[in-house]
Amino acid sequence: MPTTYDGAIQNLIDDFAKLPGIGPKGAQRIAFHLLSVDESEAQELAQAIVDMRDKVRFCDICGNVCENSPCPICADPRRDHTTICVVQEPKDIMSIERTHEYRGVYHVLGGAINPMANISPQDLNIAALVRRMQAAESDDAQDSITEVILALNPDIEGEATTTYLSRLLEPVGITITRLASGLPVGGDLEYADEVTLGRALAGRRSVTQ
Amino acid sequence: MPTTYDGAIQNLIDDFAKLPGIGPKGAQRIAFHLLSVDESEAQELAQAIVDMRDKVRFCDICGNVCENSPCPICADPRRDHTTICVVQEPKDIMSIERTHEYRGVYHVLGGAINPMANISPQDLNIAALVRRMQAAESDDAQDSITEVILALNPDIEGEATTTYLSRLLEPVGITITRLASGLPVGGDLEYADEVTLGRALAGRRSVTQ
Repeated sequence: MPTTYDGAIQNLIDDFAKLPGIGPKGAQRIAFHLLSVDESEAQELAQAIVDMRDKVRFCDICGNVCENSPCPICADPRRDHTTICVVQEPKDIMSIERTHEYRGVYHVLGGAINPMANISPQDLNIAALVRRMQAAESDDAQDSITEVILALNPDIEGEATTTYLSRLLEPVGITITRLASGLPVGGDLEYADEVTLGRALAGRRSVTQ
Repeated sequence: MPTTYDGAIQNLIDDFAKLPGIGPKGAQRIAFHLLSVDESEAQELAQAIVDMRDKVRFCDICGNVCENSPCPICADPRRDHTTICVVQEPKDIMSIERTHEYRGVYHVLGGAINPMANISPQDLNIAALVRRMQAAESDDAQDSITEVILALNPDIEGEATTTYLSRLLEPVGITITRLASGLPVGGDLEYADEVTLGRALAGRRSVTQ
C-alpha cells in the first residue's frame, strides 16, 4: 500500500521537509497550498529561490548580504562611519536596525568562535575587521573609527568571541563596548535566571543625573 | 534606515512568509539556510516546485493527486474496487493508508459543504461519485460497489456533507457507513469533551462475542 504520494508532489514534500522549522505535516500543507494557488504564484516562489542564489552577494566592506557591494548601509553617507557594530550574522543587523537606535555601520563575522564545531577565529571575518580599522587609521582615510560595539549573542560562543576580539582590538586604543546584559523589558524579576539577574545587578545604572 | 534586506533575499523571505505555517522569522531562517547550502540544493527545491505544478494531475476516477491518471490506487488490481472511501482531501487518503487497515479505493470530494465559505454540493466532486456508482451498476461493469464509507472530518462541515451524501446515496440501496466517533486511543476519559464521550457511549460495542 502506498504511504507516500505519487512522484512530483512527494519530491516537493521531501524537499520542503529538509528546510529548518518545517516538519513532514507542514511540508505536506505547503505542497498542497502551492498546488491550489495560481501557477504564477508557485513559479514566483521557484524564481525567487533561483534569483536569490544568483543575485545575493556579500558586502566587501562589512560582509552583510546585498545585491551590490558595498551594501546600502556601507554606501550610505548619512550613516556614522566612525562607529562599527560587530555582529555574528546578517540577520542580527536587521534586529539592530529595527530598534532605530543605531546610526553607525556594521561588520558581520559570519559566526562565533566555537571549538566544539571547529570554528576558530581564522574561520571568521575578523581579518577584514582589522584591515578596516587599519585603513581608517591611515592618513588618507576620511573617517577614523572611534568605537567598536561588540554585539554578539549572550551565549558561550558569543562571550568567547567578545573576549577574543576585545583583546585583539585593545592595542588599537579605541573605545570597545558591548551590549548591556540585564532584565528583558517586560520581564519579571521572579522569573529571571540568576546569571541574567547578576549581570543586571553588576550593570546597574544611576537613575539620578 | 533599512529594516528590510536588499533585493532578492527580501523577495524570497516575503514569498516564504506567504506560505501556510511560516512566519516572518521562519521565512528569514529558511532564506539564510538556502543561502548557506550548496547552490544545487536550492535549485533542486525551485525545480521541485515547478515540476510539481507541471506534472501533478488529478485522477479521473477518484480525484486523488497523481502523475498519471488513473492514480496508482485506482489502477491497482489487488485493491478491493467494491468499496469506496469518500474523503475531503488527497492528504486524507495518506492518513487512511498509513493505518494499513483499508484495502478498498477512494473518492476525493475536494472539500466539504460549507455555506459560510460559499461551498455548496455543486462545488464538490460529488457528480463524479454518483456517475461512478451508476457505472458500477451497469451490466458490463466488472465490480459492483457494495459499500461506501463516508470518512469526512468530524466537524460541522464534515457532518453536513455526511448527511447530504447519505441522503443522496440511500436510494441506490448499498451499505453506507461512516467512521466511528469515540475516545481517541491513548486519551483520557477525564479530558474527553462531552460530545466525544456522548458519541463513544452511543456507539458502545459488545466486548463478549
